[in-house]
Amino acid sequence: MRTNVRASACRLLVGLSAMLVAIPAVLAADDDPLPSWNDGANKQAIIAFVRATTSEGSPQFVPPAQRIATLDNDGTLWVEQPLYTQVVFAAQRVKALADRHPEWRTTQPFQALLEKGEAALADFSIEDFAKVVAETHNGLTVEEFHAEVRAWLETARHPRYKRPYTELIYQPMLELMRYLRASGYRTYIVTGGGQEFVRAFAEKVYGVPPEHVVGSAAGTRFEYAKDGRPELVKLPKTLLIDDGPGKPEGINLMIGRRPVAAFGNSTGDRQMLEWTAAGKGARLMMLVHHDDGEREYDYGPNSKVGPFPESLMDEARRNGWHVISMKRDWRRIFMFEQ
Amino acid sequence: MRTNVRASACRLLVGLSAMLVAIPAVLAADDDPLPSWNDGANKQAIIAFVRATTSEGSPQFVPPAQRIATLDNDGTLWVEQPLYTQVVFAAQRVKALADRHPEWRTTQPFQALLEKGEAALADFSIEDFAKVVAETHNGLTVEEFHAEVRAWLETARHPRYKRPYTELIYQPMLELMRYLRASGYRTYIVTGGGQEFVRAFAEKVYGVPPEHVVGSAAGTRFEYAKDGRPELVKLPKTLLIDDGPGKPEGINLMIGRRPVAAFGNSTGDRQMLEWTAAGKGARLMMLVHHDDGEREYDYGPNSKVGPFPESLMDEARRNGWHVISMKRDWRRIFMFEQ
Repeated sequence: MRTNVRASACRLLVGLSAMLVAIPAVLAADDDPLPSWNDGANKQAIIAFVRATTSEGSPQFVPPAQRIATLDNDGTLWVEQPLYTQVVFAAQRVKALADRHPEWRTTQPFQALLEKGEAALADFSIEDFAKVVAETHNGLTVEEFHAEVRAWLETARHPRYKRPYTELIYQPMLELMRYLRASGYRTYIVTGGGQEFVRAFAEKVYGVPPEHVVGSAAGTRFEYAKDGRPELVKLPKTLLIDDGPGKPEGINLMIGRRPVAAFGNSTGDRQMLEWTAAGKGARLMMLVHHDDGEREYDYGPNSKVGPFPESLMDEARRNGWHVISMKRDWRRIFMFEQ
Repeated sequence: MRTNVRASACRLLVGLSAMLVAIPAVLAADDDPLPSWNDGANKQAIIAFVRATTSEGSPQFVPPAQRIATLDNDGTLWVEQPLYTQVVFAAQRVKALADRHPEWRTTQPFQALLEKGEAALADFSIEDFAKVVAETHNGLTVEEFHAEVRAWLETARHPRYKRPYTELIYQPMLELMRYLRASGYRTYIVTGGGQEFVRAFAEKVYGVPPEHVVGSAAGTRFEYAKDGRPELVKLPKTLLIDDGPGKPEGINLMIGRRPVAAFGNSTGDRQMLEWTAAGKGARLMMLVHHDDGEREYDYGPNSKVGPFPESLMDEARRNGWHVISMKRDWRRIFMFEQ
């Protein structure tokens, strides 16, 4: 079932841990913290890592204060195909606000979006995305923005699944986050997407509070409303693009600690995993590989959204990072599956 | 003992709380969470607030997830006179690095510092300060920078007290932080000083972990060292000046929640207290007033470091913010006092 590549990648970390902390080959159903995961090297690696780092007396024990896990959002916790959810949201706002912004008709990337519609989005760079997000959110207070995101998520439907985006959450990753938290880990979302966009739903959907969401961030300005009440208004000024090298930079800015475990799915997560791996002691690095076109999507090196290039696969192989096959490792992908 | 002004400011918050949660007039010594505080309206206000917001069934109950307290550092948790500690640190680095930066001889604020020595620092604005900090820390990795700060704190001595700066911590505020944390609050430091500077000692000195330090922040760049190891190098690029309106902006960026309690001592904390006060439900806003020239310093409206203008005193008065008199409210200021 398992390829040699994956098996050897797993062995590096599991090997030592397994010697230190006995793991029953088959977990009793009631005790299984990861019921949506098929038994196999990846599930075993997670359990071995958690036990090795949280059992008193284990040589790999990690004190609770240092138990930081970081997880990418798009493609790692929820579906990112055919387009990043926030891009769909922002594109719809560009259309809604276009009359108030005549300059968008001749300014990229707005022009492309207005002329070609959502088709233009496939060619967007993360900078284009940041620009659209920054401009369309400009002038709203943080609370107003959260309210807009929540209202949109209530009604928007994914084109393929015809369900709210917040139902397109990977059940195995939800179980992983809950298992980590129950083991004293704090689970931070570290997303290339907008920090406030993700904060608008992360607590309800993932159980991740706003202070544990690190993302691409725009500036705000402290102002007084007409009634004298202070408010924070979003500005079209990017403070941080939390993608690629921006992920460890954002982690340092917002958390100030190196993660012990990191989870991603694409080239934008490479540096976060490298930064995590370079720390001393036990580490767990995992990449979700989208190889299940039937239940989800099958995409890899050449995808414009969430690419997983061969060089990343090589790096995972060389360094003992675990590659999760959605097809083989996940018994159930979505909560709504029977 | 207590002025009418202060008493009326206190009454607003204490009044309601005291009716809801009975507070013994005199606490048994063993049970006193704030032994370095003299009995009085301010101590009572803290205890009333904590009990009202953490007692199940209290109409002012605040769920644990929302128990966020923010505290300024310079002048609120430790001595800021005659100069901010980090400014002294940075000034010494400017001298040490001057040979490598001939351009500083003709660039302000470096020129003033090199020509006049530490006397020049009294005229520095927060922007000057940010510039010096950014330039002198440029090129160090975050770990190297922490090591430099810690080494400096080991040997540097305060000009008046002849003690390490980390001993010039206000014992009553340490007790307050511990009491808040024991009551389920997270205590965030929100400082105009450098985030990484404060992170270098906050865990050891205050029990505040790096992820609970919000401060003025410079960018970093993710790089690979010669041996291929990834590292984060500090850049001379300011991301956030966490002072005045920058405090609520920084709180939103790094925490994403409105504090329930906020503590400061000067005009740079005004907007943080306003932002805190504007939330719904129970709130506690306190300002440390430096009025004890004998044990510490006596400074107010006209101080260049940590000014407490009359307009701030008026605002406190109008809004029921508590003004802490170091002279009258604090039985002991420093741990080393007998």
